[in-house]
Amino acid sequence: MTAASRLARYLPILEWGRTYNRSALGNDMLAAVIVTIMLIPQSLAYALLAGLPPVIGLYASILPLVAYAVFGTSRTLAVGPVAVISLMTASAAGSVAAPGTSEYLEAAIALAFLSGIMLAILGFIRAGFLANLLSHPVISGFITASGILIATSQLRHILGIAGGGDTLPEQIEGLWSNIGASNAPTICLGVASLAFLYWVRKGAKPFLVRLGLRSGVAEVVAKAGPILAVAAAILAVSVGGLEQRGVAVVGAIPRGLPPFGVPQVDLDLWSKLWLPALLISIIGFVESVSVAQTLAAKRRQRISPDQELVALGASNLSAAFSGGYPITGGFARSVVNFDAGARTPAAGAYTAAGIGLASLFLTPLLFSLPVATLAAMIIVAVLSLIDSKTPLRLWMYSKSDFAAHLATIGMTLAMGVEIGVIVGVATGLVLYLWKASRPHAAIVGRVPGSEHYRNIDRHEVITWPHILSIRIDESLTFLNARWLEDYVQDRMAEQPELRHVVLLCSAVNSIDASGLESLEAINHKLADAGVSLHLSEVKGPVMDRLGRAKILEDLHGKVFLTHERAIAHLIQLTNETPAGDDRWHARGLI
Amino acid sequence: MTAASRLARYLPILEWGRTYNRSALGNDMLAAVIVTIMLIPQSLAYALLAGLPPVIGLYASILPLVAYAVFGTSRTLAVGPVAVISLMTASAAGSVAAPGTSEYLEAAIALAFLSGIMLAILGFIRAGFLANLLSHPVISGFITASGILIATSQLRHILGIAGGGDTLPEQIEGLWSNIGASNAPTICLGVASLAFLYWVRKGAKPFLVRLGLRSGVAEVVAKAGPILAVAAAILAVSVGGLEQRGVAVVGAIPRGLPPFGVPQVDLDLWSKLWLPALLISIIGFVESVSVAQTLAAKRRQRISPDQELVALGASNLSAAFSGGYPITGGFARSVVNFDAGARTPAAGAYTAAGIGLASLFLTPLLFSLPVATLAAMIIVAVLSLIDSKTPLRLWMYSKSDFAAHLATIGMTLAMGVEIGVIVGVATGLVLYLWKASRPHAAIVGRVPGSEHYRNIDRHEVITWPHILSIRIDESLTFLNARWLEDYVQDRMAEQPELRHVVLLCSAVNSIDASGLESLEAINHKLADAGVSLHLSEVKGPVMDRLGRAKILEDLHGKVFLTHERAIAHLIQLTNETPAGDDRWHARGLI
Repeated sequence: MTAASRLARYLPILEWGRTYNRSALGNDMLAAVIVTIMLIPQSLAYALLAGLPPVIGLYASILPLVAYAVFGTSRTLAVGPVAVISLMTASAAGSVAAPGTSEYLEAAIALAFLSGIMLAILGFIRAGFLANLLSHPVISGFITASGILIATSQLRHILGIAGGGDTLPEQIEGLWSNIGASNAPTICLGVASLAFLYWVRKGAKPFLVRLGLRSGVAEVVAKAGPILAVAAAILAVSVGGLEQRGVAVVGAIPRGLPPFGVPQVDLDLWSKLWLPALLISIIGFVESVSVAQTLAAKRRQRISPDQELVALGASNLSAAFSGGYPITGGFARSVVNFDAGARTPAAGAYTAAGIGLASLFLTPLLFSLPVATLAAMIIVAVLSLIDSKTPLRLWMYSKSDFAAHLATIGMTLAMGVEIGVIVGVATGLVLYLWKASRPHAAIVGRVPGSEHYRNIDRHEVITWPHILSIRIDESLTFLNARWLEDYVQDRMAEQPELRHVVLLCSAVNSIDASGLESLEAINHKLADAGVSLHLSEVKGPVMDRLGRAKILEDLHGKVFLTHERAIAHLIQLTNETPAGDDRWHARGLI
Repeated sequence: MTAASRLARYLPILEWGRTYNRSALGNDMLAAVIVTIMLIPQSLAYALLAGLPPVIGLYASILPLVAYAVFGTSRTLAVGPVAVISLMTASAAGSVAAPGTSEYLEAAIALAFLSGIMLAILGFIRAGFLANLLSHPVISGFITASGILIATSQLRHILGIAGGGDTLPEQIEGLWSNIGASNAPTICLGVASLAFLYWVRKGAKPFLVRLGLRSGVAEVVAKAGPILAVAAAILAVSVGGLEQRGVAVVGAIPRGLPPFGVPQVDLDLWSKLWLPALLISIIGFVESVSVAQTLAAKRRQRISPDQELVALGASNLSAAFSGGYPITGGFARSVVNFDAGARTPAAGAYTAAGIGLASLFLTPLLFSLPVATLAAMIIVAVLSLIDSKTPLRLWMYSKSDFAAHLATIGMTLAMGVEIGVIVGVATGLVLYLWKASRPHAAIVGRVPGSEHYRNIDRHEVITWPHILSIRIDESLTFLNARWLEDYVQDRMAEQPELRHVVLLCSAVNSIDASGLESLEAINHKLADAGVSLHLSEVKGPVMDRLGRAKILEDLHGKVFLTHERAIAHLIQLTNETPAGDDRWHARGLI
């Protein structure tokens, strides 16, 4: 690889930037305007969800977008604050400081910093495969449970009461004990916002189409619905003097660009936050890369998961350096960016400029924005995260996947996001290892009049009492090595006349050192009992490897190119022919 | 399953006990005498290694043997204190109390209790597969490093100085700082014991055979060597008055049977010891079951790993109830038991009776037994644990297994047994998951003049620019689901004329829910790009499962019984024939 292509791998901007032209510029600018309008209220809302001042949401939507434009491999992914990561940030920062304190903000910034470093390191060592630990049932269970936790956590803003908590029981307890203090004007505003935003999401587009708009235009106009809700709510609060009637508002948002600063080195804080930061990194990466892949496929583009790690790392680091909190690629905004016609990551940079302008000039307008309206935006947004169909589908398809899904949902709701993810991953892994330790194998016999060998339990085949043919349908690894020893030993105990065991290895793609030791152990155990071990149809690469070990010399039997040759040779050796009534040996008859 | 057979599964004694006769009794009694003679000094030595009073080693060799005789499935396994588990006990108990204190002894008993409960539970839930997490390279690295740690830890007794430590650097530091206080008579006794015991192990049998003994008899006599060394050392100390010259001796051992008592419920202690207890359980189980399997195979007998967990659980619980410490099936004593002709687990019960008699009547004779001789016994015993050939063999065979082996050795020596095991298991799993997330797949084409499809990189085959045939050589699980999406997407990006993708599924043994979601995602992504997804040669059980999901209705392509039918159909559909120079499409040419 030349230095230039190595550089291009880490800086995809060098590739698409070379062919950037006026047409792409126009498309990207248009997309940026639409995404900016959508992002401003969303950023404020997610900062609120994370327990942070609203302006932090804006800060987290500027520099990270520029960093992603430089390092990202997806042409249309839009990064920034997202619901689930905001919830995880609230949970992690809340474990070391109280919301509203400067320590809490520092913790959120430290999370972005640690997460950025971890993502970048994982990217450089090309460890994107670690995200595979999160199976679909675990991810979907986690997202569903997070959606429920987020929606419940925002109910207090709709009711205008205090509350909080990282788990569902804590939240319900908080709501219940404060319900007496609820504020009627806040409830009215909140419910109205909820109803309008829900309609915008579900009914606005068909309505606009019926009014005569083209489908694409209707879609874009509908996306501006939240801005309309924000404007109306601000107007209602200002005109009605609702702030004096107990409606909580966003209040003064400092004007200006994000402060640039290097996060403090605080080893004590970092030692408390490294695990949540790792979980945030992995969940964020999985969410982001799924979105990026879905969009890239639509235009037959490619993304590189390992480079995506680097890009998300750079984005989170730049969030940390500019007073933001952890971010990742979001589904909703990326789809809007894609549908609005974004062609290159430059659209992200223009969006950043748009948000920068907003934080310079628009923040005074947001003073009277009621918190209840932001909470309503969050609730409507996360309702789509709650996936009620998956549990039944999983139950029908695979009980073990269902178990992992349910364990993740239950533990996330009951114990919070961190323990939920960990339990989900652990459950998935244990179930996987359990299955992997019991692979499939079959005793095979010859199909009469052919050279084919098939499972004796499924076909009428010929076997010989002195010969046992076992087909192994799995690579031999440490997870199943012990199983193979047991399996061969059990079969041997069932067949007293046995003299030869032949392992048919056509489906064995690899043999690791534990598998090799097991083969050696089986060879010796069989030899102790006066039985020879043979191998047949060993694949080329596996045979090369076995040749580097000494098993081929130690083997009491031989290695045969085909199973038929093995059987023919062994029949001759033992002078055995299946004859008369003995011709059909079923497994039970031997 | 009837109640009786269910009972027999948990109480194997009901099976072999029924046919117990005079011949088995004679064989078992003889074996018991030989094993008892071997076990008495060994039990004292391993208790010393565990940092416990010598008598605890005897206590741990009585009731557990009876419990194993009732519950165990191996006919010849001999349980009791073993070197590695004693080392792990010392490390765990030493982390909560100082050796020699009553808290230390309580911690050792609590370890046996916790370990007994864990093993029994794992047995009842049939979770023997968890032992598969320990790959051969990890186990062998751990045993080698433990052997080194044990040998080093006993050097101080040979030198007659103080010392200690759980890691190699700590031990060397301890030896070095106390070396000035070494005691010449102790060194003489220790070195003489070492030399004699080493000769007994390596040279005694050939020597006795040259003297005219039969090989079998010579073997048995050689096994009594340690008893001879013990007797000679006791004599030397008593006659020479060496105790007054600074030679440490075992001292007064309380006479009598083990005290029977229920361990104290101490949740605080248990919360500190549960992890070491779990590691002791798993290491003990793996060691024991390997020995049991090796011996069972020699007589074509079977053991049940899950029932072995129950038996080891019962043995450890009875150790805890009789003032003992964690035990497991040992290699050396089991081989002696087997070679001496033991026929049933009753031999273990007779051995228990022998040790019981010894603790009633022989302990006063052991007062002057020098600690240096016990240390020499341990050192000679563990030298056989140190496996110097495996690292090179692993290096030759598999670099990733070598890495797991080396990480285990290094971390065990540097950080102690617990961290060593955990790092070893984690390294093995991460490497496994890394490989599992990159399975093998091949683009295939038709072998000219046949209906066979082979890898285009290895064979001259026919392909078609509108059709892509991918053979997947692995089951589809959450570990590789993301990989498959990337793989198909990358191939699609390379082949612009593509209209049909056919996945050849003959090697796909199962598809979990994540694999299913990936197939659905691939189907939709391909459809977005105007490409149809087809499947061919799907196995019966996999097809049944897919039928329960809705993918078969959603599929934009079809499912074909054979790959040839798929290709024939798609060629007709696209009116495509490979012709002229285009006939041979290598992957690079498309």
